[in-house]
Amino acid sequence: MLKRFQYLKLKHTYFFLDICPKNMKALIINIGDELLIGQVVNTNASYIAKQLNLYGIFVDEIVVVKDDKTAILNALNKGLNYQLVIITGGLGPTKDDITKHTLAEFMEDKLIEDKVVLKDIENLLTSRGRTMNKLNKQQALVLSQCKVLRNYVGTAPGMIMKKNNTTFVSLPGVPFEMKPMIQEFLKLFSKENALDKIIHKTVFVFGIPESELAIKIENWENELKKHHIHLAYLPNRNLIRLRLSVYSEIPNIEDTLNQKISELKNILGKHFVGEEEFEHTEDNPLAKILIQKLKEKKWTISFAESCTGGSISAAITKIAGASEVFNGSIVSYSNDVKHTILGVSSDTLNKYGAVSKECVEEMATGVKKLLRTDIALSVSGIAGPTGGTPEKPIGTVWMCLIIQDKIQTKLFQFGNNSREYIIESAVFNALAWILKSILEL
Amino acid sequence: MLKRFQYLKLKHTYFFLDICPKNMKALIINIGDELLIGQVVNTNASYIAKQLNLYGIFVDEIVVVKDDKTAILNALNKGLNYQLVIITGGLGPTKDDITKHTLAEFMEDKLIEDKVVLKDIENLLTSRGRTMNKLNKQQALVLSQCKVLRNYVGTAPGMIMKKNNTTFVSLPGVPFEMKPMIQEFLKLFSKENALDKIIHKTVFVFGIPESELAIKIENWENELKKHHIHLAYLPNRNLIRLRLSVYSEIPNIEDTLNQKISELKNILGKHFVGEEEFEHTEDNPLAKILIQKLKEKKWTISFAESCTGGSISAAITKIAGASEVFNGSIVSYSNDVKHTILGVSSDTLNKYGAVSKECVEEMATGVKKLLRTDIALSVSGIAGPTGGTPEKPIGTVWMCLIIQDKIQTKLFQFGNNSREYIIESAVFNALAWILKSILEL
Repeated sequence: MLKRFQYLKLKHTYFFLDICPKNMKALIINIGDELLIGQVVNTNASYIAKQLNLYGIFVDEIVVVKDDKTAILNALNKGLNYQLVIITGGLGPTKDDITKHTLAEFMEDKLIEDKVVLKDIENLLTSRGRTMNKLNKQQALVLSQCKVLRNYVGTAPGMIMKKNNTTFVSLPGVPFEMKPMIQEFLKLFSKENALDKIIHKTVFVFGIPESELAIKIENWENELKKHHIHLAYLPNRNLIRLRLSVYSEIPNIEDTLNQKISELKNILGKHFVGEEEFEHTEDNPLAKILIQKLKEKKWTISFAESCTGGSISAAITKIAGASEVFNGSIVSYSNDVKHTILGVSSDTLNKYGAVSKECVEEMATGVKKLLRTDIALSVSGIAGPTGGTPEKPIGTVWMCLIIQDKIQTKLFQFGNNSREYIIESAVFNALAWILKSILEL
Repeated sequence: MLKRFQYLKLKHTYFFLDICPKNMKALIINIGDELLIGQVVNTNASYIAKQLNLYGIFVDEIVVVKDDKTAILNALNKGLNYQLVIITGGLGPTKDDITKHTLAEFMEDKLIEDKVVLKDIENLLTSRGRTMNKLNKQQALVLSQCKVLRNYVGTAPGMIMKKNNTTFVSLPGVPFEMKPMIQEFLKLFSKENALDKIIHKTVFVFGIPESELAIKIENWENELKKHHIHLAYLPNRNLIRLRLSVYSEIPNIEDTLNQKISELKNILGKHFVGEEEFEHTEDNPLAKILIQKLKEKKWTISFAESCTGGSISAAITKIAGASEVFNGSIVSYSNDVKHTILGVSSDTLNKYGAVSKECVEEMATGVKKLLRTDIALSVSGIAGPTGGTPEKPIGTVWMCLIIQDKIQTKLFQFGNNSREYIIESAVFNALAWILKSILEL
């Protein structure tokens, strides 16, 4: 088994090295004290890494450095060993522009005011009812030799620079400013380097462990190599994404790819739960697949949430198009709401308590009737840190699932963990249970 | 203004350098291909950085490297320039233990089976109804010279090692295994290095921009230096945490600290919204403060959520103790639920639409009556990516807040941004608006 996993792992890591014509390797540099004191989680690094991977560029290392000239220069020098370096942060109006001046020094260039950028900043400020101040004006300074990446939602421009054989890209650190800019850059860069000739398809596999899946599709997988189709496993608890990639200039390759996916569908049966082109969203894939399946069946869903307090509904709502299948929910946090709105009887609450098989059954029945849906799920549990008893320790969670007229209940034990962990586990297991039940119908 | 911010920034960064007797600097090394392909967000780095900061240890750099001997060795060698190196990842049962073998090589040590660790693994597997296999047994191997950090929720042990003047700590990458182990380590380490003599207090300031706050408390802040009290600004949108730190061996320092906090309370008036010892939770501070204020007033709250789909309720529920003030919510995603459960009139829905002043007023009135709370807030908006019109573009969000009998409505425009961004902004602004309104009563 170890060998198998090692092999998967290696394949995963060096995934693109034989598909990508240039064996492109990149370094990510994130600049900012806020990352080093733990005030901000570095979501930029993972977002950028994911996007680069989709174009066949492998991120070899990520370094996070403080807003300090020497630290930044060291990181930039390290970057000369790579073909591509993505830099984020250190460009805000109240930063003292260490990054920009350090970049200028490193590139042996100077800063000049860019008229287009200045106009962009002016327009943005005007649209917010503000006027330009000295700090905003400084943001229009860019390296004289750079290609500017325009920022339509913020005031800090991006810059593309070249030194020796390395392309350096400097982007702002604010995620919603950085995201469209890296996409813009990757479009340019991938065309220039023929990386846009890689085609990806993602297949979603559900309800089968990674090791079993690997054994089940072994023969199919071995065939892929002959056709120059590359496979990556991206597991996330019991949902596994299989990403297939090909180089489009191989003759008839798209037809072959589609045929192999059809074969996989036959092998996996109900475990094959969906496919997608070039998957690059950050959505909860389980919620997304569930919504797809509900749409196919033209079924609606509702939730009665106690300990999860709206988190299951929120996970569903985050997916675009949820409104076609999701009617709404009752967050019945207090017993009073369980009783008056959902109709859980006082007897049940007194005799069995809110965290019980009986209570979740009445909650699910209540919400299904009230919101008139095909499916209803209810949850009630003890998320802690207080409220646990020897009979019902922290982490005890009851759920009830009604699909049309079929009622099922289930007891989960998530252990004496943090409140956050218990809630997250309940959300994940609720979504997985509904999906599994629908697939088994 | 620039100067002011530069000064704040510097103070922030070198916060502890004159309070901490040893001017401790650390490096974090996160090992794992999953971080480099963007499959996993590096929350470990920010968690660890935050914890180290609380003990007066400043993180100078974070490096993320792949599961590869050379990459790990390079990072470890860099670590010799620091007093403390925290390493996470590369220890799971299906990893091929590159990390452990590389650590042994680096430390010029060998791996031996640890009886206590083996017993811990056996107990854990037994509690899960599983038996020990070859891979699990390998996890009991540790460096012969290390001090073991026991893992009570997983199978990979932690190790504390010393080379030259640097302490190296190796921890598993799974967050809920790593978190208790870093706490355990820091207790040991801080005692040994007299770092536990630093006392922190955090003050929450709300509804005043960072730059205004800095001007308002300038004189008070200048006085702090005389008393060897150190101040850090931790802003998060319109909630700012001020962290005051002292070295406990200075005579009467705790009394002085409390006196300075009283003075600050007088200066800030209603903007001073709370204080806390040694803040080290990851809770949404705005939700936490709101719950505190509601408890003080003995008020209950409910929500009627449309476009936020349960996210406001979920943010409240995540805080321990929410049950004292939070009754529940109606997630009225469909118009049918708005009408049948909340009692929004068909006229309103037809004439003004679901995203309107009129609709949110009826939603809030409905949920307040139904759930019998002192406060109710409703939200309805267009989160996109479809559904926008010239009159109501994507990002248009209406909210209504009823506090006892006072009804207010408000229109927000969050711009043509991602669905996720619009929902998050709505949640943040809802909580901030409620808090502000309560404070202004």
